[in-house]
Parts: sequence; C-alpha cells; structure tokens
Amino acid sequence: MADLPKTGLQLRSLLKGSGELELSLADVPTPQPAADEVLVRVEASPINPSDLGLLLGPADLSTLKAGGGKVTAKVPERFLPAQAARLDQPLPVGNEGAGVVIAAGADPAAQALMGRTVAVLGGAMYAQHRIAKAADVLPMHPGVTAREGASCFVNPLTALGMVGAMRREGHTALVHTAAASNLGQMLVKICLADGVPLVNIVRSDAQAKILRDIGATHVVDSSTPDFQQALTEALAETGATIAFDAIGGGRLASQILGGMEASLVRKATGGFSRYGSTTHKQVYIYGGLDTGPTELVRSYGMAWGLGGWLLTYFIQQIGPAEAQKLRQRVADEIKTTFASHYTAEISLSEALRPEVIAAYNKKSTGEKYLINPAKG
Amino acid sequence: MADLPKTGLQLRSLLKGSGELELSLADVPTPQPAADEVLVRVEASPINPSDLGLLLGPADLSTLKAGGGKVTAKVPERFLPAQAARLDQPLPVGNEGAGVVIAAGADPAAQALMGRTVAVLGGAMYAQHRIAKAADVLPMHPGVTAREGASCFVNPLTALGMVGAMRREGHTALVHTAAASNLGQMLVKICLADGVPLVNIVRSDAQAKILRDIGATHVVDSSTPDFQQALTEALAETGATIAFDAIGGGRLASQILGGMEASLVRKATGGFSRYGSTTHKQVYIYGGLDTGPTELVRSYGMAWGLGGWLLTYFIQQIGPAEAQKLRQRVADEIKTTFASHYTAEISLSEALRPEVIAAYNKKSTGEKYLINPAKG
Repeated sequence: MADLPKTGLQLRSLLKGSGELELSLADVPTPQPAADEVLVRVEASPINPSDLGLLLGPADLSTLKAGGGKVTAKVPERFLPAQAARLDQPLPVGNEGAGVVIAAGADPAAQALMGRTVAVLGGAMYAQHRIAKAADVLPMHPGVTAREGASCFVNPLTALGMVGAMRREGHTALVHTAAASNLGQMLVKICLADGVPLVNIVRSDAQAKILRDIGATHVVDSSTPDFQQALTEALAETGATIAFDAIGGGRLASQILGGMEASLVRKATGGFSRYGSTTHKQVYIYGGLDTGPTELVRSYGMAWGLGGWLLTYFIQQIGPAEAQKLRQRVADEIKTTFASHYTAEISLSEALRPEVIAAYNKKSTGEKYLINPAKG
Repeated sequence: MADLPKTGLQLRSLLKGSGELELSLADVPTPQPAADEVLVRVEASPINPSDLGLLLGPADLSTLKAGGGKVTAKVPERFLPAQAARLDQPLPVGNEGAGVVIAAGADPAAQALMGRTVAVLGGAMYAQHRIAKAADVLPMHPGVTAREGASCFVNPLTALGMVGAMRREGHTALVHTAAASNLGQMLVKICLADGVPLVNIVRSDAQAKILRDIGATHVVDSSTPDFQQALTEALAETGATIAFDAIGGGRLASQILGGMEASLVRKATGGFSRYGSTTHKQVYIYGGLDTGPTELVRSYGMAWGLGGWLLTYFIQQIGPAEAQKLRQRVADEIKTTFASHYTAEISLSEALRPEVIAAYNKKSTGEKYLINPAKG
C-alpha cells in the first residue's frame, strides 16, 4: 500500500454556536484498512435532499459568503435550539456513493474486493477516501461505473421499502407524491415489474409526461382544477390506501386521505357510519420539499394515520436477510430499474461555491447533482 | 308480559336530501324479547359528544325551528355529500344508557336479569324501550341506579382503552387533552390506581383545579404563555410518548409531538441525528371539539405518528375476553372511578326544544345532559 496518497480531502459542515454555518475541505490522513475493511477511492456521491439537511442545516442562503477556502452562511437564531446536538462539531457529509477499492485488509473477503467498483452507504462520502467494512459495501457487476453505482441506496432502497411497507401493512396499492423524481421513476418501474398498482401525483403536465413515457398508468396532476376528483378516481381504480409523501407541507396529505375515504365510502355496501370507512388509510411523510405546516382537514372518519417514514427504521424492521435481498436487487438492476440521472458532476471545491450551492439546493424535480471527489 | 305498554317513544333523526334535518319522536310498538333477549325500560341515557354527530349532523343550529311535535334545522348544502349514506332514513340515536329489565326471553340467562338494572351499549337508547341480547347487557350491582349506570361504556371504556393502547404500543406514560372532562377525570383516577404517569392538558385554571383536587400531579394549562415549556417539563418528568387528543383542530397535537421530541432530545446521550429522536411519538385524535384543520409544524424528526382513534377499533383489537374484563371493572367501580356528573336530566320531548338543543350542543367541559325517556 506504499502508493496510497498520504492524505485526502473531506468536506465538512460546521454549525457554530454563534449561528455561523461553515463548509470547508479538510485534508485528512488516508486511513489504513483493518483486516475486514477496504479503502474506497470515492468517485461519485450524489447530493440527495436528505444530505442537504446536514450539509446546509437551516442556514439562510442569501447570506452565503466564500473566502479563505471556506464558505459561510448565517443560521437564524430561532433555529439554533433544534440544532443543539451538532453545534461546534465539524461533521462529514454524504450519505452514499461509489468508488474503487484501492486497499484492502488481510481477510479474504476484503482482498476479494481489490480493484472492484463498490457502492457504500453511511455518511462521510463527500471525501476522496472512505474506509468501509468489506461486508457492508455493495460490489457492482463488471462494467458498472462509479457514476452509475453512486445512488444504490437512498432512492432505490426507499422505493423498494415503500412497496415493502405497503405489503407489510396489508395494503395492495400505493400512492406517491413528487412522483416524477428520480425515486418516483424507480418506483414506477418497480411497480410495473411487480404488478403493484401505483397512483403518481405530480405537479405539472411535463412531469406527468415523464412518467407516462416510462409506462405509468395512473398519473394525477395536483396543479389542475379537477385534481381532487381525478385523484379519487385513481384511488378507486387502484384501491390504494397507503401513500408516501415527499412534500410534507400544505394540504396534499389531507387531500389524499380524503380521496381514499371518498373512494371507500363509494364502494361501501353497509349502512351509514358516522365514523366513516373502517378501512385504515395511511399517509407517510418521508420528505419535506415543503417545510411549511401540514394541514389536515379531518373528513375521513377515524381509521386514518399520518406519520414520518424513514428508510432506516424500515430496514431495522425487516432485518438483515431481507435487507440484503433488496440490496442485491439494486445491484442487479442498477442500469435499468435503478438508473439515476444527474444534472451536473462537480468537484468537492465546486460544491463550496455559493452559486453552485444555490443551484443544488433548489431541489427541483429531476435535477440532481453528483460530487466527484476524485476531481479535487 | 301482558302488562307491558303496547308502544313507546323513540327519538329519531332524519336528514332529508333537501338539506332539512328533522328530529321527532316516533311511537313504536314495544318489541317482544326472543329467548336470549331482554326488554329494557330505559331510564337514563347521556348525550355524549359522540351522539351529537348523529343527532344533529352538520346542521346550522341558528335555523332551528320547532312545530308539530318536531324540530327542524337546515344543513348547509356543502355538507350533504359527506352525509349521503344517511340521507332520507329516520335514524334512532343514543349510544348508551341504563334501565330496568321489564321482560325477558325464556333462556335462564335472560330470565335471571328480570327486574335488574342493566347498562346497554349500541344505539337507539333515546327511547322508552330497548331490546338487547342478555349476554350484551352489563348488570349493575344492587343499589346502583339507572342514572348512575347510564354512562358505563363510552367514557369509561374509552379511558380504560387509552391506558390499554398505551401499554399495547409500548409506552409507559400518556398525555390527555381536554383533561377536565368527565372522561378526563376518570382517566386521572385510573392512572392513579394503576400507577401510570399522566400529563393532563387543560384550557383554564378552573379546570386545572378540578383535576388537582382529585389527585392529578401533572396538569398543564394551554392558555398560559409558558405552556410549551411547562408541557415539555411534564413530558420529560413522566416520559410520556403517546397522547390522546379530544380537540383535534389547531396546533395542540403538534405542540405535544414537539414537546415529546424536545424532552427526548434533551435526555439523548448519542450523537446528533438530523432525523431527530428514534423513539416513536404518537398522538391519537379521538374527538373533535375543534373541527377546524389540524396543523402540524413538523419539527419532531421522523419517528412520529398521528391518527384517528376509536374505541370500537380498540375493542376489536383486544378481543371479547379482554373487553369483558374492562366492562366488569366499570361495573365494579361505577360509583367511584367511573362516576359521571350531569348538568340536567331531560325528557325525550325536552330534547327536541330548540333552547335545550342549543344548551346540550355547547359541549362545555364538565357539562353533560342526561335523557330520561321514562319522563316521556
């Protein structure tokens, strides 16, 4: 391992008690893998919405200022109490990525990975080097590049997790919002392959077209005046009683619950119940594209639930064996079902430029940035 | 059974397709009990908030008009679609009540109830006579009056159900809102007896006093400026991570989830997680004192849930044997833990007077009306 670089860059996010957020690149010593570990030269790591929370925190991006190899922004004081646990600690960022194994511990399982392109989950991927347990990395099939394998976990497992949660909780069809996203497109492909009816909610005609072009049957546009009616129709046709919502704020979750109830009441054959349909209707909020309050107009009886949904909790529920099956499916279908598209590939230093931050923070549907730490 | 009255009055609520709500008293033939049934002369039936939905529907009470032995009111047209299933059917009303068994079928179990005061659940209690399965009625201990036994089910079983749901879902302490209600006072007594920490949320100092006087330890007043802070303190002291909310509308549910999260984050020893505490926080809405939208300011990570909660669904979950234990506890403690207090006792005809309707529809905490159909 004499040829390994002695150090490598690592992006860090520091939120100071004073209310200043500082992003910087630290030059850290290259770690040596233990017997059961490998050292990965990271070549591709996406900026997911779930990365932005740690990277930028609740910073006011209109105050972004670059200088001295760093970029800073102010965090309004009212947001600081909720951030108490991270104050004054420089935190590495980057949930997932892929790269090439350039050093390996003595264990055969680690040695077997030398030179392989692998995908890694677990933070600190916005860095040139990353140590990982050999057992934790997901080896790519030959011919798969780091760029192609960069997004093996967050979106693919979340999409598979939604279908899994749907089944575990006894539903037979599901609803997805912000459905034209990378994740949403994966979900369309999974549901087509598995024969699961899916209601896609999008916010524009262009997004609807993207989904129809890849075979989506039920696409409802929330920007149209007859949205609630079209949604109720789609819910009645599919029988969907569980939804995964990436928006979070506003009335969309409530409209979905209302539509489910209306479609259930319409089918009901029993007498009138003032508690509404007895079929449980569930919406899980898994994202926060709209960070404003969620507003529930409670008109769907008593058999309903709303809650947060996090992939990590789902993986814990299903256990390691089931989780490994999902991971392997991702590796097997990374060029098809789970293919990701990127708007731009940037270096670590570019990720600290105010105008680039403004761009990748927009979270526009279909736009996604990829960091390539090998570019410096 | 020759001495039985041939007919008896029954209150009915009819919502016409035209948008007119009509309450009337029907004179119905006295039913004859089958072998396994008893005939109860109803002497006491409370007007619970859960009865008002069926009784008055979404009627505009400013349009109440009495005449011809009936009372009518207009239902605004926008509310009619949700009421489709009940339109143009005269529906009997009254979830629960108590009275004396005046006729019984041939089965020994039915015969054994002759002359006994029994409590009955299941609708149509705003009537002079009610048929019930002998196995379904709850016999009162000697010396318990119909008035004392009138509210054996809705409030007592709901309060017991809350503690049961808390245990089933793995929590060790709970929160209750509108806590000075009849139900809330029962819950205080149950929690004291069972050693379950309880956080009571009330809306005035007078209500706080009511609860402190019966031994409540944690009472928080949502009308005070330091409510959120006091609530978080109480949540930290009790470790409550489940709440039952009778209000429904506004931000109270969200404040409770926020307080739970703040108290959990404070105790957390691990590192910072941008997904918040991993402990599941749950609020169940079981009432709708505020029918306005529920507003969630999502600042409690991803491990949270909100949903409707209905006693019926809980009873189905626990099964008949467990449910019978709860019923027997109610019968055993009907003069103590489960004692109800009534503002006024009215006849069936009085229940149709506009000024009386306005009074019992107010749903003020601590105010409750009792219908005594034996009064006519």
